[in-house]
Amino acid sequence: MKIGILGTGMVGTTIGSKLIKLNHEVKLGSRAADNPKAIEWVKQAGANASQGTFTDAAAFGEIIFNCTKGDASLAALQQAGAANLAGKILLDVANPLDFSRGMPPTLIPEFANTTSLGEEIQKAFPETKVVKTLNTVNCNLMVDASLVAGEHDLFICGNDKAAKERVIQMLQQDFNWTSIIDLGDITNARATEMILPLWVRLYGYLQTPNFNLKVVS
Amino acid sequence: MKIGILGTGMVGTTIGSKLIKLNHEVKLGSRAADNPKAIEWVKQAGANASQGTFTDAAAFGEIIFNCTKGDASLAALQQAGAANLAGKILLDVANPLDFSRGMPPTLIPEFANTTSLGEEIQKAFPETKVVKTLNTVNCNLMVDASLVAGEHDLFICGNDKAAKERVIQMLQQDFNWTSIIDLGDITNARATEMILPLWVRLYGYLQTPNFNLKVVS
Repeated sequence: MKIGILGTGMVGTTIGSKLIKLNHEVKLGSRAADNPKAIEWVKQAGANASQGTFTDAAAFGEIIFNCTKGDASLAALQQAGAANLAGKILLDVANPLDFSRGMPPTLIPEFANTTSLGEEIQKAFPETKVVKTLNTVNCNLMVDASLVAGEHDLFICGNDKAAKERVIQMLQQDFNWTSIIDLGDITNARATEMILPLWVRLYGYLQTPNFNLKVVS
Repeated sequence: MKIGILGTGMVGTTIGSKLIKLNHEVKLGSRAADNPKAIEWVKQAGANASQGTFTDAAAFGEIIFNCTKGDASLAALQQAGAANLAGKILLDVANPLDFSRGMPPTLIPEFANTTSLGEEIQKAFPETKVVKTLNTVNCNLMVDASLVAGEHDLFICGNDKAAKERVIQMLQQDFNWTSIIDLGDITNARATEMILPLWVRLYGYLQTPNFNLKVVS
């Protein structure tokens, strides 16, 4: 499948490399084409890898991953273009982290509590099927749930049932997720984004990003 | 031990009844003495149970539990009186839930993201040893961790190390908690309060309040 990835940081390149290994075609997008990180990634990732602008990546992909930083996501998606995103699944893995007040980060107030990044993206791109997931785990765990032994849970939400089913299938088959909790519509994104403040503290406590939560009942 | 409990709702009476069973003396406090719920509770709880105002309960207790609703906590504590709380452990189990926007609740903005109820209580009562814990689980689970089978975690935070150690001892011996994660100082309260939006959704998903999270690494 052709997949567009917006964002050339750790998250974007980690997901991109995994998808290439699974024989997908991946185009990595950034603000400007020929971003040095994107060129370097293409060199390492091989024949099915390419790079370009956000617009190029969105036009290319049948499914799009939003791997941009939360404070840049809406601008990146505007650059990608509503027409290039219309009718497609946008897998939103970003978090609205605010590092401007120091560490550990807080959430960007405009994307927290009474709304969320996932919700604001869905509002801005009503013809796109936004599916929020993977944002509660580190990028290495995103693409291989078995990195953390034992049972642990991934959350998913979004307004389009068929889109969520398609994403769940991908998470199971490609990324080894066995336990996925569908919280409902995209308004539930605020709940999963709001556990990030706990996540960053547990990262400090455990001294490893390879952890996750399990719901025990 | 003499324990003061602020709040006569489900949380306050559940904790109070458990502490009475453990042979502690408990005074339940509310805005006005002779609150019907408090009188009823005393009748059922027996000889070691009593009730009065917030001031009475705070003056009585060697340790104080804040079991008021988050939007009323600071006012209740002001009524309890800084002098009655000074030097004591205040076990803050409250959450700043905001039901004014409908269900599921959001958090009260003045107590979320860049601060928290726990932090604001500590700021308002600098001579009190505020320990935030138990706020991420239902009240029945608060007083008996074994209600949920298997391993699961409780978070604790606060500025006073000895106070936290004392509370951890109580949580282990009296409430059967076996896994307690000390996140650090009281600023970590914002992280545990911010998982409430996920908690309320998981309550809907699981259709039982008897669940908890386990950190898996």
